[in-house]
Amino acid sequence: MNFELTKEYVEQVQELILTENSEAIRSSMTELFPADITGLLYELETPEARYLINQLDTALGAEILAALDPNERREFLKAFTSEEISSYVNLFDSDDAVDLLNEQPIRVREEVIALLEDREQARFILDLLHYDEDVAGGLMQKELVKANVNWNVNQCIEELRKQAEDVEKVYAVYVIDDNGILLGILSLKKIVLANKDTKIERLYDKDVIFVETYRPAEEVAELMQRYDLDALPVVNVQGKLLGRITIDDVIDVITEQANSDTLAMAGITGDVEENDTIWQQTRARLPWLLVGMMGGIVAAKFISFFEGDLKIIPAMAAFIPIIGSTGGNVGIQTSSIILQSIADKTGLDINVWQRLIRMFAVASINGLIISGIVFGFNLLIGNELQLALVVSSALLSVVFLASFMGTVTPILLDKIGINPAVASGPFITTANDLIGYGVYFGLAHLLLNL
Amino acid sequence: MNFELTKEYVEQVQELILTENSEAIRSSMTELFPADITGLLYELETPEARYLINQLDTALGAEILAALDPNERREFLKAFTSEEISSYVNLFDSDDAVDLLNEQPIRVREEVIALLEDREQARFILDLLHYDEDVAGGLMQKELVKANVNWNVNQCIEELRKQAEDVEKVYAVYVIDDNGILLGILSLKKIVLANKDTKIERLYDKDVIFVETYRPAEEVAELMQRYDLDALPVVNVQGKLLGRITIDDVIDVITEQANSDTLAMAGITGDVEENDTIWQQTRARLPWLLVGMMGGIVAAKFISFFEGDLKIIPAMAAFIPIIGSTGGNVGIQTSSIILQSIADKTGLDINVWQRLIRMFAVASINGLIISGIVFGFNLLIGNELQLALVVSSALLSVVFLASFMGTVTPILLDKIGINPAVASGPFITTANDLIGYGVYFGLAHLLLNL
Repeated sequence: MNFELTKEYVEQVQELILTENSEAIRSSMTELFPADITGLLYELETPEARYLINQLDTALGAEILAALDPNERREFLKAFTSEEISSYVNLFDSDDAVDLLNEQPIRVREEVIALLEDREQARFILDLLHYDEDVAGGLMQKELVKANVNWNVNQCIEELRKQAEDVEKVYAVYVIDDNGILLGILSLKKIVLANKDTKIERLYDKDVIFVETYRPAEEVAELMQRYDLDALPVVNVQGKLLGRITIDDVIDVITEQANSDTLAMAGITGDVEENDTIWQQTRARLPWLLVGMMGGIVAAKFISFFEGDLKIIPAMAAFIPIIGSTGGNVGIQTSSIILQSIADKTGLDINVWQRLIRMFAVASINGLIISGIVFGFNLLIGNELQLALVVSSALLSVVFLASFMGTVTPILLDKIGINPAVASGPFITTANDLIGYGVYFGLAHLLLNL
Repeated sequence: MNFELTKEYVEQVQELILTENSEAIRSSMTELFPADITGLLYELETPEARYLINQLDTALGAEILAALDPNERREFLKAFTSEEISSYVNLFDSDDAVDLLNEQPIRVREEVIALLEDREQARFILDLLHYDEDVAGGLMQKELVKANVNWNVNQCIEELRKQAEDVEKVYAVYVIDDNGILLGILSLKKIVLANKDTKIERLYDKDVIFVETYRPAEEVAELMQRYDLDALPVVNVQGKLLGRITIDDVIDVITEQANSDTLAMAGITGDVEENDTIWQQTRARLPWLLVGMMGGIVAAKFISFFEGDLKIIPAMAAFIPIIGSTGGNVGIQTSSIILQSIADKTGLDINVWQRLIRMFAVASINGLIISGIVFGFNLLIGNELQLALVVSSALLSVVFLASFMGTVTPILLDKIGINPAVASGPFITTANDLIGYGVYFGLAHLLLNL
């Protein structure tokens, strides 16, 4: 297949950098795709990477920088002057330029914009900086090809020729009226196949899906997936065409969404990465650890009510972990499956009762098997029949309760507008644990006549 | 914005179906995009949905069915004859056709293929059925536009005209030699702007990224994301062009991958959905519950060694939950962050020592805060100083151990080629719990002179 980054290759490039063999660097880099050079940068030390990129064409350098991971790029660009950054940003797509500038300190951002040679690019960037990162306006790029509805195909191709260098991926030409209002879309395929004198008016497709600047990024992603779009035009409230969002940006949105859901499940708030500062990591993690700790303190207080019982039957303490972990595991499994249904939206027609019945059936099977095995184990190691009965009935109840909680909680959270992914996190796990201990000690107190 | 599915709208359509007002159904459906009609189907009963789709054009019906969720579609198509399914599949893209057929029982699959009117489509499907679903061959479609390197642009456009109906999204024309070997690519933009007499040979781009049929789906997704591709040509080992993979299929791969990682974290094997059978759900969930149960049994056996200690200080039992849950929570948090780094691949240059130092710092802060608070709580409720010391030292040790395990385990799993996402699942959580209890009771036994 294609290019494979090996340790040997990295060392070879490092050798060329060390000997400042600029000629050889340039020629070996022309054999790579820009994205491969980006991959190579991750393996180099910052001064090496800086030397390498300085040997290359500004246009190639811009492509390499555009593909760089934001966190790595923020670090890397500290070694560059605002003039240097500006010469690269000059050649970026406007959406990528805004992303890069948003990573920079305000001073650098202002300087880079002031130094931009391409004044249209500067205007594009200033326009886009108004929007939040997580709405349609923050995802869009200004680069697109538009055609007036009164033109013919030939005029359209001429416009395309003018824009060809700026707009890397065209996908389609957007059709507007004299006031810039979006009227429809004309695919490149149609342009290729059309007679050059045909009026655009007779050719274009009026059924165009668009989005307003203020719509949230998740809605944009959902829309582009549902209608299978490569690019989505963005308009203002008057319907004026302002930009477009391309599918690659939406893939980033989807990936980030999945990432932050996973982190939420693990009890981490916000978008933390391993190379964030210790303070950022602590801030993201401590709150949920404190929730778990509070749960543990409540559990401790609760269990201490039963100290008298434990003094008589200390073997009871041995089953505290299995009660807690079974409740936690069943709860997380159940809510993950429900979460998936909610995200898919295909499960909308399943009503809550059907859900509960199915959940009940699965819980019965799992609960009976687990409590059965634990019952056998208890008898095997010579624990009393009564204790064995208490432990297994508690386990069975915990499986049911955790299944119920795992089904209901994400549905309720979703209804009241909270991200239901937190339902699989420490908060609910802690709640399930507490319920489990309550059932266990309650049953024991009753059945063992303590 | 665009179409919004409301309860009122659904009821309105149901009314039209009930009164068999075929004319009104057809006219109101022409106002919708196919994907919206798919969304509508989820809200209808199967006989209603069947009636609705039967009133529409076969071509429109095919688009609606192609967008339907696989699980829903399998159920829905049970109400259709093989002849009916065949008339729709006839108009599918070949990759979607294969997906649909793979959902069907073998008998139906064979019948549908035998009944296909478009024999080229049948041949495409038989070709594609050879490939596993999770390799490049299983993702590709046969529909594409190719041009011989010896043609000129005009011949290329003629070919495009012939294929225009079959190939919905063209993106680019693939350039091949007389033996069908892939030589390069020619973007639609270049075709639009080129002089019609220009030889393709002088115009096309030789730097084309392609993939062999046997490459795994994840690699395809990674490749298309890295190089920002809309379509990826698929070749056999000889380099012959066999098909192409479009970006929408890759979005599905990414979404499914994220889904199954989340499920793995929650202790669910395989790709289960809420409306899978009770047996499928049990099979996916029971194994991990059994792992958790085994951990619980081991914990019980372990704690029972300390029954003598518990008889003397039953208050010790009260802190079993907080030890277990803190270990579990810290372990999951840590491994999730490491997992993210592994998935991003940008963290490759962080060496294991740097990772451990950072982990150690975060663990120190979190551990000290938590054990400090719990220490205060213990004194507050009047527990003995010695017990308070034991609990808090155990907590601190557990935070460190769980952080260490959470850092090392996913890295090791990844190195030996196991999906590291399972590291956040019940298995590691269980291991962390056990280590925690060991530390707690060990410390207690030592410090309390039991």
